[in-house]
Amino acid sequence: MHTDLVAALDIGGTKIAGALVDGGGRILARAQRATPAQQDGETVMRAVTEVLGDLAGSPLWERAGSIGIGSAGPVDASAGTVSPVNVPGWRDFPLVDRVRTVTGGLPVELIGDGVAITAAEHWQGAARGHDNALCMVVSTGVGGGLVLGGRLHPGPTGNAGHIGHISVDLDGDPCPCGSRGCVERIASGPNIARRALEHGWRPGPDGDTSAAAVAAAARAGDPVAVASFERAAQALAAGIAATATLVEIDIAVIGGGVGKAGDVLFTPLRKALTDYATLSFVRHLTVVPAQMGTDAGLVGAAAAALIRTPDATAASR
Amino acid sequence: MHTDLVAALDIGGTKIAGALVDGGGRILARAQRATPAQQDGETVMRAVTEVLGDLAGSPLWERAGSIGIGSAGPVDASAGTVSPVNVPGWRDFPLVDRVRTVTGGLPVELIGDGVAITAAEHWQGAARGHDNALCMVVSTGVGGGLVLGGRLHPGPTGNAGHIGHISVDLDGDPCPCGSRGCVERIASGPNIARRALEHGWRPGPDGDTSAAAVAAAARAGDPVAVASFERAAQALAAGIAATATLVEIDIAVIGGGVGKAGDVLFTPLRKALTDYATLSFVRHLTVVPAQMGTDAGLVGAAAAALIRTPDATAASR
Repeated sequence: MHTDLVAALDIGGTKIAGALVDGGGRILARAQRATPAQQDGETVMRAVTEVLGDLAGSPLWERAGSIGIGSAGPVDASAGTVSPVNVPGWRDFPLVDRVRTVTGGLPVELIGDGVAITAAEHWQGAARGHDNALCMVVSTGVGGGLVLGGRLHPGPTGNAGHIGHISVDLDGDPCPCGSRGCVERIASGPNIARRALEHGWRPGPDGDTSAAAVAAAARAGDPVAVASFERAAQALAAGIAATATLVEIDIAVIGGGVGKAGDVLFTPLRKALTDYATLSFVRHLTVVPAQMGTDAGLVGAAAAALIRTPDATAASR
Repeated sequence: MHTDLVAALDIGGTKIAGALVDGGGRILARAQRATPAQQDGETVMRAVTEVLGDLAGSPLWERAGSIGIGSAGPVDASAGTVSPVNVPGWRDFPLVDRVRTVTGGLPVELIGDGVAITAAEHWQGAARGHDNALCMVVSTGVGGGLVLGGRLHPGPTGNAGHIGHISVDLDGDPCPCGSRGCVERIASGPNIARRALEHGWRPGPDGDTSAAAVAAAARAGDPVAVASFERAAQALAAGIAATATLVEIDIAVIGGGVGKAGDVLFTPLRKALTDYATLSFVRHLTVVPAQMGTDAGLVGAAAAALIRTPDATAASR
């Protein structure tokens, strides 16, 4: 049988998306369910099973040779389990075994969602052609993943690239993760909005206090809004520079809602990078917006499975 | 001809050491010169040539199939050049070409000194058997290197693992590298001593104001000395936790003069790690002292050459 497709799952706190993806990254069939995030683990698994069932209803299903899963973290790829922060019913949930059983024994590749986004940007997006890259999602949280030496670097448990939870301010504010001064604690959308509000920024008549509203105010010249983005940019720059200094990357790709803020983020970010990325081998580092859209998680999960499954790898090369 | 040996060079600001090393990491012949660090580049190169000449005088030289160089950084392995901070006469100095010429065309492998130490600890020391490790030298400066997925990760330019110059305090004190709040700016020996003196610690009758003297005072219970080591430990913990969070390491090995301080460093360091290494996949991280002695740079440079040179690789396995 010709198994040139991957069944990809993108599992988040809001929705569970599925797709059949070909060796060129094209999505040929889709399925989706809302994540019953506050319900018990079996109920969440039932939603996954329904998504897979929808995909299996496609005439293309018989061409699926493997399953790629990108999941909200933490994940444990070595154990095949997931414990998404926003899905309390899943703690060390044996997702890989369960999906393998549901699909009749297909090989399953599990990675964290930040790693999945990275696989997608490296395969088809802004990191294409770069052998050493950091890809980030700056949104409600801050996630990421790494490409090292031309290959995705998920790490032994599939969580590598967790830049949101490195401390760039060792005496800084406590982070929900338990540490202090994490990049996410300073640069995530909610923290950009919180800081602007704390320093006197007020929303417009629509009452929108999102980071997007702060970005709009910054674009209109509001100094408090500008300063909140500058602080976020500083934390992102320190984190990106640390990553480059540790593993030698030459490009950082930033997606997610905050990544869409444009110049109010990227201009101070590029300036701050010159402050923190000082050693000769990191000075050439560039920062660019992500190119993949909302399908990045699905495409990246498929890419990870294509890399690991010999049969599909041949198809992807 | 049977080329089962490597000619290794360890180039620092004080001395240039050379050795013939076998596939088991044993040193069979040695040579050494002081580094004429303040002289012109050709004079420094002459010292390297003399070290190689001494080695070539050994009857074992004909068994040397490659050259491994670990050099004070920054290095540029892709260009084959070195620019050691403490050797101003060498800026983008084409060391690889020059050594290749001197040795009649042997293949030359160049890595930074932190990467060399790491190769040695992974091959024969405290990181042996660990597929994902950070090895550090905490001394006058703070350097390091990474093992990822079971292999040395020098990065494209041979500088990866530069943990001394990641910022863990984005608003912190300026670092000579141009950044702020770098791990080295807080945790190096001179900075441990500086901080103790600034806070009122005074040396004994011998006037010794080294970090080793501060360590001795800390061991005797001096609270200012203890606090200076605790602050260094906090910065090291934040940097080590950041590294683990980014690339998934399970062990950090600490060598160098400060690394020899023992419990006054390791006790607060292990405590601080629990503050900063909070995510599930980094919580099991351990920190241990280095095992390799002063030959680590030579053994590691040999290891790097053995890894890259097919003939010698066979001998090392």
